[in-house]
Amino acid sequence: MSKRVNQQPLVYFDNGATTQKPQSVIDAQSDFYCSSNANVHRATHQLASVATTKFEQARVQVQKFINATQTKEIIWTKGCTEGINLVAQSWGKSHLNPKDVIVLSYAEHHANIVPWQIIAEQTGAEIKVLPLSSQGIISKEVLTHIISERTKIVCVNHVSNVIGKVNPIESVITRAKEVGAKTLIDGAQAIANIIVDVQALDCDFYVFSAHKMYGPTGIGVLYGKEEILNAMPPYQSGGEMINKVSFSGTSFQSLPYKFEAGTPNIAGVIAFAKAIEFISQYQLNDRHEYKQELLEYAFKRLQTIPSIEFIVEGKPDIPLFSFTLKYHYQDVASYLDLSGVAARVGGHCAMPLFEYIGIKGCIRLSLAPYNTYDEIDFVVDKLTALVSKTDEIIQRNNVNENDNNDAQILIERFNQLKGWDTKHRELMLLGKQLPRMSKSARNEQSLIQGCESAAWLTYSIEQGRYCFQTDSDAKIIRGLLAVILAAFNNKTSSEILSFDIDHYFTQLGLLNHLSPTRGNGVLAIVKKITEVVT
Amino acid sequence: MSKRVNQQPLVYFDNGATTQKPQSVIDAQSDFYCSSNANVHRATHQLASVATTKFEQARVQVQKFINATQTKEIIWTKGCTEGINLVAQSWGKSHLNPKDVIVLSYAEHHANIVPWQIIAEQTGAEIKVLPLSSQGIISKEVLTHIISERTKIVCVNHVSNVIGKVNPIESVITRAKEVGAKTLIDGAQAIANIIVDVQALDCDFYVFSAHKMYGPTGIGVLYGKEEILNAMPPYQSGGEMINKVSFSGTSFQSLPYKFEAGTPNIAGVIAFAKAIEFISQYQLNDRHEYKQELLEYAFKRLQTIPSIEFIVEGKPDIPLFSFTLKYHYQDVASYLDLSGVAARVGGHCAMPLFEYIGIKGCIRLSLAPYNTYDEIDFVVDKLTALVSKTDEIIQRNNVNENDNNDAQILIERFNQLKGWDTKHRELMLLGKQLPRMSKSARNEQSLIQGCESAAWLTYSIEQGRYCFQTDSDAKIIRGLLAVILAAFNNKTSSEILSFDIDHYFTQLGLLNHLSPTRGNGVLAIVKKITEVVT
Repeated sequence: MSKRVNQQPLVYFDNGATTQKPQSVIDAQSDFYCSSNANVHRATHQLASVATTKFEQARVQVQKFINATQTKEIIWTKGCTEGINLVAQSWGKSHLNPKDVIVLSYAEHHANIVPWQIIAEQTGAEIKVLPLSSQGIISKEVLTHIISERTKIVCVNHVSNVIGKVNPIESVITRAKEVGAKTLIDGAQAIANIIVDVQALDCDFYVFSAHKMYGPTGIGVLYGKEEILNAMPPYQSGGEMINKVSFSGTSFQSLPYKFEAGTPNIAGVIAFAKAIEFISQYQLNDRHEYKQELLEYAFKRLQTIPSIEFIVEGKPDIPLFSFTLKYHYQDVASYLDLSGVAARVGGHCAMPLFEYIGIKGCIRLSLAPYNTYDEIDFVVDKLTALVSKTDEIIQRNNVNENDNNDAQILIERFNQLKGWDTKHRELMLLGKQLPRMSKSARNEQSLIQGCESAAWLTYSIEQGRYCFQTDSDAKIIRGLLAVILAAFNNKTSSEILSFDIDHYFTQLGLLNHLSPTRGNGVLAIVKKITEVVT
Repeated sequence: MSKRVNQQPLVYFDNGATTQKPQSVIDAQSDFYCSSNANVHRATHQLASVATTKFEQARVQVQKFINATQTKEIIWTKGCTEGINLVAQSWGKSHLNPKDVIVLSYAEHHANIVPWQIIAEQTGAEIKVLPLSSQGIISKEVLTHIISERTKIVCVNHVSNVIGKVNPIESVITRAKEVGAKTLIDGAQAIANIIVDVQALDCDFYVFSAHKMYGPTGIGVLYGKEEILNAMPPYQSGGEMINKVSFSGTSFQSLPYKFEAGTPNIAGVIAFAKAIEFISQYQLNDRHEYKQELLEYAFKRLQTIPSIEFIVEGKPDIPLFSFTLKYHYQDVASYLDLSGVAARVGGHCAMPLFEYIGIKGCIRLSLAPYNTYDEIDFVVDKLTALVSKTDEIIQRNNVNENDNNDAQILIERFNQLKGWDTKHRELMLLGKQLPRMSKSARNEQSLIQGCESAAWLTYSIEQGRYCFQTDSDAKIIRGLLAVILAAFNNKTSSEILSFDIDHYFTQLGLLNHLSPTRGNGVLAIVKKITEVVT
């Protein structure tokens, strides 16, 4: 990829969040719109017939790809999350009763936790959680104990999005069968990396998203065994999934259409077929081997970084590495971003896992077959430089003692700084200067949760003017918070409410780099401030 | 458009099902994948920041386009259908009680009927239905009578997908307010054609899909008033929509994220923004006027076709025309398809409307600003020729009395026919030859419902061999049924089950033209036959 970020060649190591797309996938979507765009399953005309044929051929490809017995077992969803919600609501509502047990693991993504918490609350069922070994995979030893006669469904990931190891799902499925429980496997991270055979696994449901396997956004798959899907009530309803509608009564289509209400993501499905071709191709040839070698190489090289701590023991099974360094992960992320490296840090939508491990978050590098040894070397060298204090980005001490940080002064100061690297350094300094809140003030009441890292906010009012105190564990976030306080502190509520924060970040030259996002909690602070003064 | 269908230039008159896409929309999707593909709201790196900014800018564009007061009132869905399901389940489950009333109209799309039937069943609420005037719009006279103190929500379309007229939704909304009922407006057909101002309407919910307004498939919008959305429980759950997840309890994000679980259709949203630009542009300039002139012209010209019967009185408000001719609509559709014209026929996912009007289905021509006067002339001339019997397609009498229609003979016969038009004629003849079932045999038991038209099937078994009888009101469908019977009649169950119907249609040279689709009911027949013999 020739893309440059922050004047550096892009190193995209965030494939666990979403993969880049091969040209064949991008072209398939454009070609569809240019040459055969029509709605499916609805019309007699030829354009619709061509669209429908392509759309249904994609279903056959997915069926073959995961070795399902029939195409009717392949349900299009908008993504992995919707697949789990569908099962939780449709199967759950018709099968779960008070005292029934749903079994999850501590390493589940929020998408495989929250839908079950909601259905548990609605039905009175209970949730039990499988513990993990020191290797970070589900402990086989406790399966018999936790999966009991009361268990009605077991929902676990094939590979965790933080740990990158293949769970012993065969054992989980075998144990579930012993007690007559159903199984749902979250394959979001596995599907692009290992060969999935749903018949061999003999799971009842398997879910995944296209965008994490080189396909487009907005499309995913729920695989379910025919007889189980048949016995489930429809989830969403509307056109396409009905047989006959009348105000005196409505009947539904058979599988798979029963679960596909409304016009589907037709272009997405058709492009997804090309992603399946792409992935099938590389799983059968050298590129698979190459990916394994990349994995080995990256793991070996990462271990050379001083102070690195992997969050679990042992080498991952897919090229996805989670670790901490001696600096806050958010600071590491902004430092990597400065070097053109896209990584993900924080809680990775798996907060219970971090609570379980006892850390707040981590840095995750996730690789794909288009990544290179050079990129690994580059990132390892950068991180080594960071923790070896040969790099001044985080540690620089000559703090600019200008505490007159009002918004206009900050804009002028930032405008004198050329390049994102100098602005980044200035932000780190601002972060360093920002007075820390006392430990007791950083409590549940003052906590503002972001997806990646947390921040705290308290305030007082004097003569109608607000004085905010705010803090974060990450220097870079404290820097952003200092910038925000410069705009809001010592202002009246009407001044605060009329302040255009986006324009301010644009003037600072930060909008494209570090605009307030929900992820880092800064947007949450801005919203909280707005709420406070409203 | 330079696309050719069946050796004819394509005339795309099926814009009510889905519109074609401007190049800017197609390019936006490709550009996103090529240059800024990353997941949104989740990461610190710049690619994610750029993607998030573009994604949220699209939300601002939608907000402005429908004049919502705030971006948090714009919820991304996968389409109109999902928006209605979300409201029915989330709002409905928390607000509807036994004896509460949901008010719909007879002209609703299935997507605005079935979700309400399901929630009515779940909560014990009742459904009441607004009748239509002879013009096909909601009768204002009965509003006070039907929308009563017991009414909790009124859900009607802005413009029906069959009738093409603007409903008096201002009156509906005013009446709903008088009794304290909420209002949901299905804007699927209106949004591309008339200016929608949700503040002026003062409706509580407004839903629409991108793909019917020049945008991509797989993305739609639910607009809702902030205070109402705030009071609703989440619908789907997972990443993105949570604040904090723990096995001891989970809290949710604020609007709009509370309703956006999982990775959204990022590329779809970003491309949708270009569709909004496209539509805003033409609504402000000459093209809007041009569309009005097209509407006038088409309505005037269509009226000249002998025997045409519009399904309601008066000129539509958007260029969408529904009518019947003296031939079965399915036969008209296949005749139009032969001429390169994409039209839609049948029940249009609005079966209750057809039951109300008292017809089985109709032909619908729906136009967009890229259609031309010449195309209108072409279609009107074709239809005039058809009904004036100057065209032999449907009426030709020299029936080929070859009743030895077994599969191999049919393949040979079809292979001698060059061009789709001659094959089409042969199918019509086969349809004519197929013995009709007695009226009493065409009953509820033998009925196989397709989306566009129905078919009937009965069978007997003699010495292990099956004999099927089948029928349809449309000649073209009877022709296809004759082809299918040729393959299946007088065969054993194992012969039937091992028969590759797709290959057969390919050999006949019919797969790209008239493959069995659920729409025309033929696929349903094939499936039924397979079930019967299994």
